[in-house]
Amino acid sequence: MSGTSSEGHPLAKGKLRHPLHLSPGRFTRPGAAPGILARPAGLEHLPATLCLLDYDATDITERADCSLDEARAFFDSPRNTWLHVQGTPNESMLQSVADAYQLHPLALEDVLHTGQRAKAEVYDGQIFVIASVPEARNDQIEIAQLSVFLGDTWVVSFCSGDRDPFEAIRKRTQQKDSRIRRNGVDFLFYALLDTAVDHVFPTLESLGERIEALELTVFDDPSREALNEIHLLKRELLLVRRALWPQRDMLNGLIRDEHKQIGGNARLFLRDCYDHSVHALDLVESYREMASSLLEIYLTSLSNRMNDIMKVLTVIATVFIPLSFVTGLYGMNFDRAVSPWNMPELGMRFGYPVLLLFIITVVVGMLIYFRRRRWF
Amino acid sequence: MSGTSSEGHPLAKGKLRHPLHLSPGRFTRPGAAPGILARPAGLEHLPATLCLLDYDATDITERADCSLDEARAFFDSPRNTWLHVQGTPNESMLQSVADAYQLHPLALEDVLHTGQRAKAEVYDGQIFVIASVPEARNDQIEIAQLSVFLGDTWVVSFCSGDRDPFEAIRKRTQQKDSRIRRNGVDFLFYALLDTAVDHVFPTLESLGERIEALELTVFDDPSREALNEIHLLKRELLLVRRALWPQRDMLNGLIRDEHKQIGGNARLFLRDCYDHSVHALDLVESYREMASSLLEIYLTSLSNRMNDIMKVLTVIATVFIPLSFVTGLYGMNFDRAVSPWNMPELGMRFGYPVLLLFIITVVVGMLIYFRRRRWF
Amino acid sequence: MSGTSSEGHPLAKGKLRHPLHLSPGRFTRPGAAPGILARPAGLEHLPATLCLLDYDATDITERADCSLDEARAFFDSPRNTWLHVQGTPNESMLQSVADAYQLHPLALEDVLHTGQRAKAEVYDGQIFVIASVPEARNDQIEIAQLSVFLGDTWVVSFCSGDRDPFEAIRKRTQQKDSRIRRNGVDFLFYALLDTAVDHVFPTLESLGERIEALELTVFDDPSREALNEIHLLKRELLLVRRALWPQRDMLNGLIRDEHKQIGGNARLFLRDCYDHSVHALDLVESYREMASSLLEIYLTSLSNRMNDIMKVLTVIATVFIPLSFVTGLYGMNFDRAVSPWNMPELGMRFGYPVLLLFIITVVVGMLIYFRRRRWF
Amino acid sequence: MSGTSSEGHPLAKGKLRHPLHLSPGRFTRPGAAPGILARPAGLEHLPATLCLLDYDATDITERADCSLDEARAFFDSPRNTWLHVQGTPNESMLQSVADAYQLHPLALEDVLHTGQRAKAEVYDGQIFVIASVPEARNDQIEIAQLSVFLGDTWVVSFCSGDRDPFEAIRKRTQQKDSRIRRNGVDFLFYALLDTAVDHVFPTLESLGERIEALELTVFDDPSREALNEIHLLKRELLLVRRALWPQRDMLNGLIRDEHKQIGGNARLFLRDCYDHSVHALDLVESYREMASSLLEIYLTSLSNRMNDIMKVLTVIATVFIPLSFVTGLYGMNFDRAVSPWNMPELGMRFGYPVLLLFIITVVVGMLIYFRRRRWF
Amino acid sequence: MSGTSSEGHPLAKGKLRHPLHLSPGRFTRPGAAPGILARPAGLEHLPATLCLLDYDATDITERADCSLDEARAFFDSPRNTWLHVQGTPNESMLQSVADAYQLHPLALEDVLHTGQRAKAEVYDGQIFVIASVPEARNDQIEIAQLSVFLGDTWVVSFCSGDRDPFEAIRKRTQQKDSRIRRNGVDFLFYALLDTAVDHVFPTLESLGERIEALELTVFDDPSREALNEIHLLKRELLLVRRALWPQRDMLNGLIRDEHKQIGGNARLFLRDCYDHSVHALDLVESYREMASSLLEIYLTSLSNRMNDIMKVLTVIATVFIPLSFVTGLYGMNFDRAVSPWNMPELGMRFGYPVLLLFIITVVVGMLIYFRRRRWF
Repeated sequence: MSGTSSEGHPLAKGKLRHPLHLSPGRFTRPGAAPGILARPAGLEHLPATLCLLDYDATDITERADCSLDEARAFFDSPRNTWLHVQGTPNESMLQSVADAYQLHPLALEDVLHTGQRAKAEVYDGQIFVIASVPEARNDQIEIAQLSVFLGDTWVVSFCSGDRDPFEAIRKRTQQKDSRIRRNGVDFLFYALLDTAVDHVFPTLESLGERIEALELTVFDDPSREALNEIHLLKRELLLVRRALWPQRDMLNGLIRDEHKQIGGNARLFLRDCYDHSVHALDLVESYREMASSLLEIYLTSLSNRMNDIMKVLTVIATVFIPLSFVTGLYGMNFDRAVSPWNMPELGMRFGYPVLLLFIITVVVGMLIYFRRRRWF
Repeated sequence: MSGTSSEGHPLAKGKLRHPLHLSPGRFTRPGAAPGILARPAGLEHLPATLCLLDYDATDITERADCSLDEARAFFDSPRNTWLHVQGTPNESMLQSVADAYQLHPLALEDVLHTGQRAKAEVYDGQIFVIASVPEARNDQIEIAQLSVFLGDTWVVSFCSGDRDPFEAIRKRTQQKDSRIRRNGVDFLFYALLDTAVDHVFPTLESLGERIEALELTVFDDPSREALNEIHLLKRELLLVRRALWPQRDMLNGLIRDEHKQIGGNARLFLRDCYDHSVHALDLVESYREMASSLLEIYLTSLSNRMNDIMKVLTVIATVFIPLSFVTGLYGMNFDRAVSPWNMPELGMRFGYPVLLLFIITVVVGMLIYFRRRRWF
Repeated sequence: MSGTSSEGHPLAKGKLRHPLHLSPGRFTRPGAAPGILARPAGLEHLPATLCLLDYDATDITERADCSLDEARAFFDSPRNTWLHVQGTPNESMLQSVADAYQLHPLALEDVLHTGQRAKAEVYDGQIFVIASVPEARNDQIEIAQLSVFLGDTWVVSFCSGDRDPFEAIRKRTQQKDSRIRRNGVDFLFYALLDTAVDHVFPTLESLGERIEALELTVFDDPSREALNEIHLLKRELLLVRRALWPQRDMLNGLIRDEHKQIGGNARLFLRDCYDHSVHALDLVESYREMASSLLEIYLTSLSNRMNDIMKVLTVIATVFIPLSFVTGLYGMNFDRAVSPWNMPELGMRFGYPVLLLFIITVVVGMLIYFRRRRWF
Repeated sequence: MSGTSSEGHPLAKGKLRHPLHLSPGRFTRPGAAPGILARPAGLEHLPATLCLLDYDATDITERADCSLDEARAFFDSPRNTWLHVQGTPNESMLQSVADAYQLHPLALEDVLHTGQRAKAEVYDGQIFVIASVPEARNDQIEIAQLSVFLGDTWVVSFCSGDRDPFEAIRKRTQQKDSRIRRNGVDFLFYALLDTAVDHVFPTLESLGERIEALELTVFDDPSREALNEIHLLKRELLLVRRALWPQRDMLNGLIRDEHKQIGGNARLFLRDCYDHSVHALDLVESYREMASSLLEIYLTSLSNRMNDIMKVLTVIATVFIPLSFVTGLYGMNFDRAVSPWNMPELGMRFGYPVLLLFIITVVVGMLIYFRRRRWF
Repeated sequence: MSGTSSEGHPLAKGKLRHPLHLSPGRFTRPGAAPGILARPAGLEHLPATLCLLDYDATDITERADCSLDEARAFFDSPRNTWLHVQGTPNESMLQSVADAYQLHPLALEDVLHTGQRAKAEVYDGQIFVIASVPEARNDQIEIAQLSVFLGDTWVVSFCSGDRDPFEAIRKRTQQKDSRIRRNGVDFLFYALLDTAVDHVFPTLESLGERIEALELTVFDDPSREALNEIHLLKRELLLVRRALWPQRDMLNGLIRDEHKQIGGNARLFLRDCYDHSVHALDLVESYREMASSLLEIYLTSLSNRMNDIMKVLTVIATVFIPLSFVTGLYGMNFDRAVSPWNMPELGMRFGYPVLLLFIITVVVGMLIYFRRRRWF
């Protein structure tokens, strides 16, 4: 009966993957002063790495993995400057950057307390944007926070997590004839957001593949592992959706409102970026419906199975229970003396062993049958 | 018991049709430069065929299945020119067309990466529109992408897939007194969109027929095949709905915004086209509700069946189990010597064979009964 | 066991009423030219009957069931003219009327292809309106299409189906002091729409009665017929709702937009008509919720029944199965020689017949009991 | 087995309360002329009672239960006049009032055909408002219709049903320093609407109590009565919600639109009244969710019970069925002659009576156990 | 069988926690005069404590737990004054404060009748705001009402309940260089609202933890306690959501409308506060979906269990019932005299005791097995 004991078995339990933590974000203590740069406790801080690009159409300087002091030299550069901070900066580093570019304290607070909703704010002529960079890692979805400040000739970006999503952007910037070089920082700003938005597609593709794999499983074998997997899927879709909705609104706001820092050309490209984010949301909603469908199929398959099981029981029981009554009724004490037709088997030499053999055959046959139908 | 083993049987499995792939579209690699004409990998490319119409109210020239060089001669034609590209163009062909008409790189990217949402964009005075052309083929719904550029005196259209949906349009254009000939290219533009929108109705009709066929099945026989079919239906409706929603918004946008390329008359006809798309969406939503209803009926029918099965089991068991106890209680060792009324059957000559016969009759009768109710 | 075989019985099947056909409307062939007057194939055409009213405040002329030629005489009448066409007109009749009043081809197409969504359009200063006239006939809901053109001094109306809904309007128009006579054609226009809108209430009332009848049934006897009836109800509500939603929007549009043909007084009455349509939609939404509730109750009643059945089985089985084991254990071979207390029944003269009688009594009693509970 | 027969028992049936009638309102016959004062047939008409208040800041005259002629004397009073008609007025009374104040025929029609949606209309400078006055009476919710006309110095109100909800208002008006006396008729108008809106709260409180009582029941005993009660609750919430939604919109419209009859102070108080109606809707929506939750719990409790029942059956059956086979196998014909260990019980003097006693004890014990678990 | 009796057992009942009371708020009696200061009956009134802060950038005076008379001295202070009343004030105290600051009677009524929806009103140039302060106390969520009046140089705040949420604000105000000191009362006003909004996050975190704990439980052991816990969770989420929705709208209104009392800087910080409230609502909606998911998993786990139970029953019954028939058929009266192979066990000396032992072993083994699977 080992197969049916799925809910008591430690191994079966071990197979269930733990759902993602849907934390409420790192909230500030109620009553705490706003805009105070204190890193939320209980988070391991990755050492932040800085990367600086200073470029115009003709020339470019890159400082990868540089120190804050190295970077500082470029803070007043008349050329386009892009300072990218990967990982969680410590307070002093953040404060230095903030002082150099007059970043608003409320924005800095949002940079530190990652897990914010995507949004676009304007502080003293600077545009501040928060976006989400989802990534599927080991079948777990992680969502890094991208915070970007856009000034007149500079972009400062912060990305939480340990993976820099902007390697490709840097390569493109190195190319002299690339659009980024030929345009202002607003185009770089667009390129960063576009990269963040496009990061969701590989994630969605892996989710789509998992849904399709589950569809085949669930029809044939509605196991507890499949139920757990459906549950995880729904959870992850919820997570991705929560990240994408505000992002779409943020992009829409950037396009709709006339910001002097964002030129007509960059706005055109941002519209394309917005289209991508709408497309991604469309997919998420479709996937959510499909995951709900999966659960319905799962339940229906369970009911189907139950029907099958009950049919077997009912056929066997309704056939043999009345017959047992009949044999019980006559006690099978037919008078063998009266007629040779009355139960001659009882007088045979090997009657009993043959019967035993028959019984054992039936038991073994049935067990094989049930095993094949995966009943235990 | 073969009938009840539906979930273990390879043939039953074979009957289940695989659901449509709901791919996230061919997305660009995150961080890739926008507007670069690189065909997405992993797609088989059908060789694109060109078809050119150059017409005014009095005259018309058609170049069916022409080469790019033949077409090029008409690129500067002062008459109305319609260049239609069926299938996926290669990059150089696309670039030539783009250069001739100054098509925007972002639009070209969307032409190549099919599977985009329907939308209308304005680039430098050109209107660029993406629409969906759904088609039911072998009970599978395929959605081709139609991309149309509308200039002052020309229309360039691209349609993915291998079936040209515009044969009828070309025939109408050949007729000298047709509306297309009497009007500008904006009317041709409308005619293309109208054809795309109307393509959904035969698809919807076939879906409607499948729903109605299922309704009869599901009441009487909630089989696994029916469940699979319902699931497929829901999936296909999801797909069609995802294609139609943005199409409706796109048409609405075309009517609402004042585009100089689209005259008042064409706008009036576009409104009719918009009405059709709203009607189609209405139908899709109705069908979705009906598909949900189907699933509810399916589940309820399953419960009904379970009830029926349990009733049979309970009636048989509650009648015979107590009786078996009674016969067991007396062991049926009535003393035949005391009275001739006590179990005279045991002393009969053919008592045992007659009983055997009776038992066999009961078993066969019950098996026939269960078979008729499709229990196995 | 005949009662439980409800899903195999041809008569039971016969009781299930077939759901309404939710056709996608008669769509035009994709790629067909718009505004071409070709009657959709596959429809039986009722011969159309014309009815003409020509009136002003002082005088009125009625031509009931007149020919097109009779009607033609009034086409240029300076008085208010109302031409009503009941049934499906043939193309030439439609074309004659269209020529006389310069009706727009797109509108004519909508007149011919019935099953359109309700809408209001303005073509060259004429108002063209499509409305729905639902009617419950033999417990089937049929939705006729009403198409009305409103000019400066004339109204042309087309109503599909074979029942003229406007007899009462004609009677009111005959009365010299009626509002229709005292006002312009805009009031007649309102009266036609109001009649169409009010037609839904008797239909809704019959639906409401069916819902309430079902509520009583479903609690006590969740039969397959009830399930079928619930399903039909949901389908019909879906149909009515699909007809009413666009009608509401159409009326709202008529009130909101300032049309010169519709005076302030008529607009006030149209607002009342709009209120009625909102009320009707309210009811439909309520009924839809109630139908969903019915299904929930149905399912819950099924579960309740299953619980009851299982309780009976469990009580009987758990009482008698252990007892049977006990009697089996002792084989009931008590040594009657040892004591007169040991199974004296076995030595009685009528022991066996009395036992048989007892068994038969139990069987018959139980069958009566199960029959009463409608288990078979 | 009487306990399990709950669905066949007339008394159990009697316990089910009949749901409220959700009538479509008293609709006018399709095609009937609008604004005709004909009382809908099939309604018992309560004799209407009139109550008149004529007041200014210094003086007040009250005519309770007066005749129409007494009231007529005040129709042209320069002071603030409030005429309240409780119950359904007959046509002549209504016409007299209508003539005195020039009430609009469409509004009068709405006064007579109660069951209208709440709305605010402006006819020739008069404000006409319909509101709902819900009341829980014997656990049944009844919704009276309040119709109020607001003129420059007069208010005419009609309230269907037999209970006058405005006794408290009259008392407050009698007090010389009350706000109603110190303000114009717009404040009286507000006071009437506020009373109507606040009438829903006691109703909601009684619904809330019923929900909480059900919550305790449903966890422990998912009976058919509880199901019926949940169903009734959902129905009543649907009814209340249908009354409150348009009322909220009506109040919102009154505040938003600038009506010259309603001064700034009265508008401030109407905003408070609007807040109450929003609060009430909030509650209704919460209650609806809770009622849905109840049904879910009900169903889950049923499943829980089924599980419990099946466990009992399975434990008993799986323990004793194999044992019965074993005793059957050996037939328990152990040779007592061979050994005194072999079934000595069979040779005991009281073996059989003791066994009978044991069997009876088991049966009685089990019946008590099942009764305690309310299985029958 | 004690384990299965979970629904009859008083202790099991005791484990179910009672759901929160979702009262309709303390509504005014229908027909009661508005703005009358009468404390709702049936509420225990906590003695209200006053706390007064009078400050400007250079100096600050604090009167903690002061009497009304002490406070009165500061009512006309030219400096910024913050009067906070914790608990429910009595009518005279409220009236004194109201007289000093000309608070509007309708606002005072809302202060007394706690349980109002969050809203922002403007009365004679004063801004009046109601907000919610949720708090998780002993796993029960309590929602206190915060009412704040903002004048030109003063803030009056009332908070129901016994816990003062503003201790941290007072500490920050004591610091000379804090933002509150450096800014006007509008910043204090923001700080109070921000504290109220941020109070929801710890509550949400505890809800999130409970959801995650339940997820593990429900997969393995769908007990009645878990069902009760899910139900409580849904109820509490409903409660929190009902508090947060209007709060979000209130904050949005404060930002959108231009109030002269709220400066640009404070508006910027209010926008941050608004973002927090949107984030909180996002979380609540996610949690609600997760709670619904939990119920689905619960039900599915129940069905899974049922399947497992039925499989055990079916395997045992289908194996042994036919075998019992076979043994019954032969009555196992093999003629031991014919052959030594025929049932030699019956002639063994300890045949019967060994069989008894075997039976006992089987019973005990099965009981242990069922106990392990928690079937009783």
